[in-house]
Amino acid sequence: MEYRIEKDTMGQVQVPANVYWGAQTQRSIENFKIAQDINKMPHEIIRAFAYLKKAAALTNLDAGVLPQEKSDLIGQACDEILAGKLDDQFPLVVWQTGSGTQSNMNVNEVVAYRGHVLHGGQLSDEKKFLHPNDDVNKSQSSNDTFPTAMHIAAYKILLDVTIPGITKLRDTLAAKSKQFMNIVKIGRTHFMDATPLTVGQEFSGYVSQLDHGLRAINNSLAHLSELALGGTAVGTGINTPPNYSENVAKHIANVTGLPFITAENKFEALAAHDAIVEAHGALKTVAASLMKIGNDIRMLSSGPRAGIGELHIPDNEPGSSIMPGKVNPTQCEAMTMVAAQVMGNDVAINIGGMNGHFELNVFKPVMIFNFLHSARLIGDVCVSFNDKCAEGIEPIEANIKKHVDSSLMLVTALNTKIGYYKAAEIAQTAHKNGSTLKETALQLGYLTEDEFNEWVKPEDMVGRSNVSGD
Amino acid sequence: MEYRIEKDTMGQVQVPANVYWGAQTQRSIENFKIAQDINKMPHEIIRAFAYLKKAAALTNLDAGVLPQEKSDLIGQACDEILAGKLDDQFPLVVWQTGSGTQSNMNVNEVVAYRGHVLHGGQLSDEKKFLHPNDDVNKSQSSNDTFPTAMHIAAYKILLDVTIPGITKLRDTLAAKSKQFMNIVKIGRTHFMDATPLTVGQEFSGYVSQLDHGLRAINNSLAHLSELALGGTAVGTGINTPPNYSENVAKHIANVTGLPFITAENKFEALAAHDAIVEAHGALKTVAASLMKIGNDIRMLSSGPRAGIGELHIPDNEPGSSIMPGKVNPTQCEAMTMVAAQVMGNDVAINIGGMNGHFELNVFKPVMIFNFLHSARLIGDVCVSFNDKCAEGIEPIEANIKKHVDSSLMLVTALNTKIGYYKAAEIAQTAHKNGSTLKETALQLGYLTEDEFNEWVKPEDMVGRSNVSGD
Amino acid sequence: MEYRIEKDTMGQVQVPANVYWGAQTQRSIENFKIAQDINKMPHEIIRAFAYLKKAAALTNLDAGVLPQEKSDLIGQACDEILAGKLDDQFPLVVWQTGSGTQSNMNVNEVVAYRGHVLHGGQLSDEKKFLHPNDDVNKSQSSNDTFPTAMHIAAYKILLDVTIPGITKLRDTLAAKSKQFMNIVKIGRTHFMDATPLTVGQEFSGYVSQLDHGLRAINNSLAHLSELALGGTAVGTGINTPPNYSENVAKHIANVTGLPFITAENKFEALAAHDAIVEAHGALKTVAASLMKIGNDIRMLSSGPRAGIGELHIPDNEPGSSIMPGKVNPTQCEAMTMVAAQVMGNDVAINIGGMNGHFELNVFKPVMIFNFLHSARLIGDVCVSFNDKCAEGIEPIEANIKKHVDSSLMLVTALNTKIGYYKAAEIAQTAHKNGSTLKETALQLGYLTEDEFNEWVKPEDMVGRSNVSGD
Amino acid sequence: MEYRIEKDTMGQVQVPANVYWGAQTQRSIENFKIAQDINKMPHEIIRAFAYLKKAAALTNLDAGVLPQEKSDLIGQACDEILAGKLDDQFPLVVWQTGSGTQSNMNVNEVVAYRGHVLHGGQLSDEKKFLHPNDDVNKSQSSNDTFPTAMHIAAYKILLDVTIPGITKLRDTLAAKSKQFMNIVKIGRTHFMDATPLTVGQEFSGYVSQLDHGLRAINNSLAHLSELALGGTAVGTGINTPPNYSENVAKHIANVTGLPFITAENKFEALAAHDAIVEAHGALKTVAASLMKIGNDIRMLSSGPRAGIGELHIPDNEPGSSIMPGKVNPTQCEAMTMVAAQVMGNDVAINIGGMNGHFELNVFKPVMIFNFLHSARLIGDVCVSFNDKCAEGIEPIEANIKKHVDSSLMLVTALNTKIGYYKAAEIAQTAHKNGSTLKETALQLGYLTEDEFNEWVKPEDMVGRSNVSGD
Repeated sequence: MEYRIEKDTMGQVQVPANVYWGAQTQRSIENFKIAQDINKMPHEIIRAFAYLKKAAALTNLDAGVLPQEKSDLIGQACDEILAGKLDDQFPLVVWQTGSGTQSNMNVNEVVAYRGHVLHGGQLSDEKKFLHPNDDVNKSQSSNDTFPTAMHIAAYKILLDVTIPGITKLRDTLAAKSKQFMNIVKIGRTHFMDATPLTVGQEFSGYVSQLDHGLRAINNSLAHLSELALGGTAVGTGINTPPNYSENVAKHIANVTGLPFITAENKFEALAAHDAIVEAHGALKTVAASLMKIGNDIRMLSSGPRAGIGELHIPDNEPGSSIMPGKVNPTQCEAMTMVAAQVMGNDVAINIGGMNGHFELNVFKPVMIFNFLHSARLIGDVCVSFNDKCAEGIEPIEANIKKHVDSSLMLVTALNTKIGYYKAAEIAQTAHKNGSTLKETALQLGYLTEDEFNEWVKPEDMVGRSNVSGD
Repeated sequence: MEYRIEKDTMGQVQVPANVYWGAQTQRSIENFKIAQDINKMPHEIIRAFAYLKKAAALTNLDAGVLPQEKSDLIGQACDEILAGKLDDQFPLVVWQTGSGTQSNMNVNEVVAYRGHVLHGGQLSDEKKFLHPNDDVNKSQSSNDTFPTAMHIAAYKILLDVTIPGITKLRDTLAAKSKQFMNIVKIGRTHFMDATPLTVGQEFSGYVSQLDHGLRAINNSLAHLSELALGGTAVGTGINTPPNYSENVAKHIANVTGLPFITAENKFEALAAHDAIVEAHGALKTVAASLMKIGNDIRMLSSGPRAGIGELHIPDNEPGSSIMPGKVNPTQCEAMTMVAAQVMGNDVAINIGGMNGHFELNVFKPVMIFNFLHSARLIGDVCVSFNDKCAEGIEPIEANIKKHVDSSLMLVTALNTKIGYYKAAEIAQTAHKNGSTLKETALQLGYLTEDEFNEWVKPEDMVGRSNVSGD
Repeated sequence: MEYRIEKDTMGQVQVPANVYWGAQTQRSIENFKIAQDINKMPHEIIRAFAYLKKAAALTNLDAGVLPQEKSDLIGQACDEILAGKLDDQFPLVVWQTGSGTQSNMNVNEVVAYRGHVLHGGQLSDEKKFLHPNDDVNKSQSSNDTFPTAMHIAAYKILLDVTIPGITKLRDTLAAKSKQFMNIVKIGRTHFMDATPLTVGQEFSGYVSQLDHGLRAINNSLAHLSELALGGTAVGTGINTPPNYSENVAKHIANVTGLPFITAENKFEALAAHDAIVEAHGALKTVAASLMKIGNDIRMLSSGPRAGIGELHIPDNEPGSSIMPGKVNPTQCEAMTMVAAQVMGNDVAINIGGMNGHFELNVFKPVMIFNFLHSARLIGDVCVSFNDKCAEGIEPIEANIKKHVDSSLMLVTALNTKIGYYKAAEIAQTAHKNGSTLKETALQLGYLTEDEFNEWVKPEDMVGRSNVSGD
Repeated sequence: MEYRIEKDTMGQVQVPANVYWGAQTQRSIENFKIAQDINKMPHEIIRAFAYLKKAAALTNLDAGVLPQEKSDLIGQACDEILAGKLDDQFPLVVWQTGSGTQSNMNVNEVVAYRGHVLHGGQLSDEKKFLHPNDDVNKSQSSNDTFPTAMHIAAYKILLDVTIPGITKLRDTLAAKSKQFMNIVKIGRTHFMDATPLTVGQEFSGYVSQLDHGLRAINNSLAHLSELALGGTAVGTGINTPPNYSENVAKHIANVTGLPFITAENKFEALAAHDAIVEAHGALKTVAASLMKIGNDIRMLSSGPRAGIGELHIPDNEPGSSIMPGKVNPTQCEAMTMVAAQVMGNDVAINIGGMNGHFELNVFKPVMIFNFLHSARLIGDVCVSFNDKCAEGIEPIEANIKKHVDSSLMLVTALNTKIGYYKAAEIAQTAHKNGSTLKETALQLGYLTEDEFNEWVKPEDMVGRSNVSGD
């Protein structure tokens, strides 16, 4: 491979001749050989940096501290990053400095040197038209840019991937809830037969969970909308022009189209990432919901002969390499595995979030890595589960009817007629004898057949349905 | 011990003669010998049950399904529970049925039998005036009462203990932030010297963390305000009179003085406890904040001779059984230990929350046990830390000044004057030679003494202070 | 209340007149009002301290630095603690200093002052015969005593409670495995019908899990057997007589009857509690096993009419306050809730364990609190589940047979005869038509009835049983 | 793109014309569009499958159920996978079916079709010489192959990456411990000055932590060495030739060079992955150790002017994009971030491990994904930290001496001479007056200057060093 020489304040570094990055990126590649093939800094962070570098250049231009030509070049290079044209220029991993300085410098270098080339220069020029620190990073520090990029990336992925994914699934489940609203089935509590409800009611619970989850995510957006930029090194805003914080937040809001504002308190914004901890608290809540839904669907569709068998889900692929004809609830499995992962990611984030010290939290990369992972997984798995499973769910009415008709818990309807104790005696006797409720009730003489027929109707036991959904 | 005989649907049980509980409570004592000395069902849950049993009796009275006399007796017994007069009548543990049925029955039995005695009866009477199931539990199920009690207890403890505790600490830190706003100190990032800020600015970050934490807790109250009551066995509201859900929620709001409403969707409210998962997500966020604050305070007060020594904290007790005269940051230690516990509790809650099945989540007791634990610990530790540490924090100005004066990172002020690279050379040279910045700057010839004196002033480097606090 | 005056190095403190504790305990009560009603320092730790104080006195006697009379008095007071006679003298909570100094001093004070009284003195004497620091704590520091008490308490509870509890359940399951070894049932993978196995084989998997779990616990005992005592303040052993570490470890081994040794490296033993982190890693593994077992048993016993219904478990109590005659798998629920708690405790321990700094980890109380909680819960719940559930498990053979006979996955036996693809066609067709395998196989013409009868025998499909158990 | 048609039991699928995979892999790509760019099934699993498919073919050959030619072709294709020649043929993600069936089929298809091509066939041939199910998967199921691949991959990465990485760091720290054994420094407990120890003693604690961690990992290998293969669909070994389990384990041991054995109980081996839960318990213990070590090193090297400054660590890169000349403990940061990640991964594994049901755990991919991630991260970060930080650690003796000389905790040496209380008075008075210990001691008249000089020698207070290390 051919190399060129780049310099930073520590001296010269050999860099591959044709890459846009410079000395500090190269040092990081060599200093952090940790899972380099699998844990690259997420591209959402790189793109968030492109938004903010562009916004910073515009703000510096407005403030008269950066000339138009340089600002334009920075903007152009950032646009190329956003268009995905420079994806291979960001080789660094999550496991670097905890401030993300090296990824900030990676972006600074790539923007500066790509800008230099756009300006007509050569990568091999010793002196470049744009300087990574003095121009691209002007009025900034890693300490305020990286947390700003974290919030941009987090906010954006929630809006672009997570919320739409959950909403898609929520809407399908709401439609199913409506469609199945009059199919009476046996309820199950403690895995044991209980009083009846309808399939639609059961599904309405899932919808309500996701609605609450969406609300929880939305509640967390306010804190995420606060940007650290303008705090620079320790939160005081050293080396920024007047009103920089407010202005750069406006530019970021502009270029992203999202309602970002400057953080009221920059000291918190650098030293703590409670916004990430808090917002992931919403994601873990959704993960709990998805585990519940995934488990229910796979247990309700269990069988086909020796399970519960009340729901049919789509047959997407052969389920077994040894058992011919087997079909499995694989989308449920992907969804519940995602739930497990999100719960793990939550702990990694908590530990990172609680271990900031003094003016800086240096668990930034691991926190945003886990956050983006969760946000992406939840969004993707909701769509996958929706498209390949939820949309195809159908009730198996024969089994549903068989289960509800045979249930002993219909006896609950008799509580208000003959009291809890006599009702219990009927159920216990029927269970012991393997007989039906009606037979047993009559035999024990606690009510007449007419009374039984009038009082014990599953369809009357499902209540004044009280459900969310459309 | 003397015993009397009580009965339930499974038969006779020997119960200590003088206790108010009955057969089902006794069965649970015998069936669940699990950590009985240390893990009683929290009294907050028992009291929440008292509120709801009283409210249910009033609602049943309104609905014409319970006579006035019985409703009054139930109310009286509940008031005694709320007054703490029957605390020894609730012997059950957390590790029982996952629906909390046995604690619901414990309350039903105590209220019924205490009511019977208030009515003039004897505990030894075979027939009691009030029936645990048919009267006290009327229009209810464990499946909707226990989650209702969870929400009442959770909401109440947040308002009574957690929020006031955090607020108290927040206010003290805000006052300290104001008081210390002009004391310039060296900033520290990555544990390394950085540019200066003021002690007040540093503290303002803590205030901002707690403000955000309080907002996160407040955001979670809406979901907690939704009550399951009226869903009965599986969410359908079987065996409830018309409009029971709405009416009983109003009565609960009344007796508790808190804005409870009926849950829009009862199926979710029984089968999932995402509200607890979500609200504890706010508590774990506060735990992350407390860990940060506790760590900072103890490191800033480290020493007295070989540490950082910039803050003085109160000497509350001898710190060592072997090192005479040693004083330790013990309140910080209690606070950071609480943070660790809350993070653990979060995982227990997540696992419980994700493992509901079909119409019921049966991890209810473990979830609320951990929630109440965290809420209590955070509230208590904030008050303790406030009273015994935060209020007494004072800066040690001599050390603060020494650190800021010697710092090499004041060189950052020169970036905009002589560029990042020359500034770096000054700092590196001074570090290598153990010399001061000024000496080195002059020696390298990058600026004059007058320029240095004008440009490098710590007090000018702490910015247009941008802080929260009062 | 009447008070007396006690003193420590910070001055005078009012102490209730009739308690054995002194100034430092009293300070801690007043300084740490955090969950005082629910989170007392576990009595296992207090008793572990009694062992070590007695052993330390004997070692000091041997070394000639403590007179016989004082050593004897210390031993006597410790014996009273071990006999449970002084249980109300240890009022401190977990949420104190992170070194546990205050609980060490609580024990020092109680032993000294109780010893003084045993020696004929009065609690109100200003000068006591035994001094908490100079006599009871001689050759010790909180920094080495508390971790020593942690290891003694942890080791002892594993041997006394956890391992016997697991073993009891393991033995019952092994007996059930044997008993059910020839009952052929349908297997279930992905909740879907699979090829058959026997009930005994299924249970043998549980036994094997617990056997491995016991091995994991046993593997962790070696690290727990290493004691910090002798390291004193920072691990160097300052203020100890020659060979103190080795000798005191021998005395502790003697008084406890357990194979404790002195830690090879005292610096680790004070500054880190990886032994607790590691050993709790074994406990969390057992928790995972218990969750699996509890879930399986409750799902296999689900029904009675609309579930799987292959196992009968004991009816211990009425299961519902509203559904008469309902019985629930409540022991499974207690066990799975314990599993959730242990997983949470694990995280609290991890966070404590990773946050030691320099010469001392100051998360000691929270770590051992969670460890003892888990060890106790696992031991207790295994016994409870064993006595009230496992011992009474019986197969419901009619349902088992019905399920195995109807299963389509018996077709797997044909793979080696007619190939996977044709076998799949048979299963898929039978599923589609709701027909039996044999009907379909013959109809498709892939084999004769005789071949089918010979090749598709569930009892031949359960293999050369390969199981653990007795 | 050009396509060819492949078939499975569900029908035809379009597959890119030039890939070796077939219908089932293609279905999985289309059915699981979940984080496809970032969460591929780890290549360690693919290679583990290559070992086992080769071993299975050899075992089937021995058993006479697979002809030599087919066995050879399978072996050849597997060797190509192991040589990394087919890396781009495994496009599936972690978020698929929880049994990993699709990755098993991906391997079956690639081996079969690559074997077919090696045999002279074309990918476009409708009929291939090797069949994915009937040949490559012969005597196997996903249910026993995937867990076997999990154990092979886990065992191998521990031996190849994790253990060597930890050992390398351990050895460097042991060498540093020796090198620094006589440098007396002040100890710190609770972040406060304590009695002295040597730098070498402090480092010996780190060595001891890693030694114990290595032992914990080694303890977990026994369970990991047990292989599920031979259990096939549900653990009974259906469709395997006699002695298949034992024989295939021997072949796997052979081809991997590792001491694998057949699992005693196959029912556990499919239905639970406690071995992974347990072994990751060892990894999380090491993570706790690494957090401690990383935190200590960065705090001890803090400064350079306003921190502790007792250690010098290598300057690897410029530390700040805004503060010129700043150098940060970036390797410590990578290491502590890894520790946070491993703790999160632990929870994901625990949740997966506890949620197996009946005859199969279907959280296999998420469990092994997190396990391999942790094992890799720990191994890599230990090497990185070793090479770029630990090897270059040097004491800053001037600061070390200044700290030890000024410390008030040297007073501890006087406990045994003048008693704890008088010693405390000296320390407290010196602290209050800002005076030295000696001045104060003499002034209070508790000892003579000669006595002080003889009794208070830091170098005599560091004990009979008791350390591990070489």
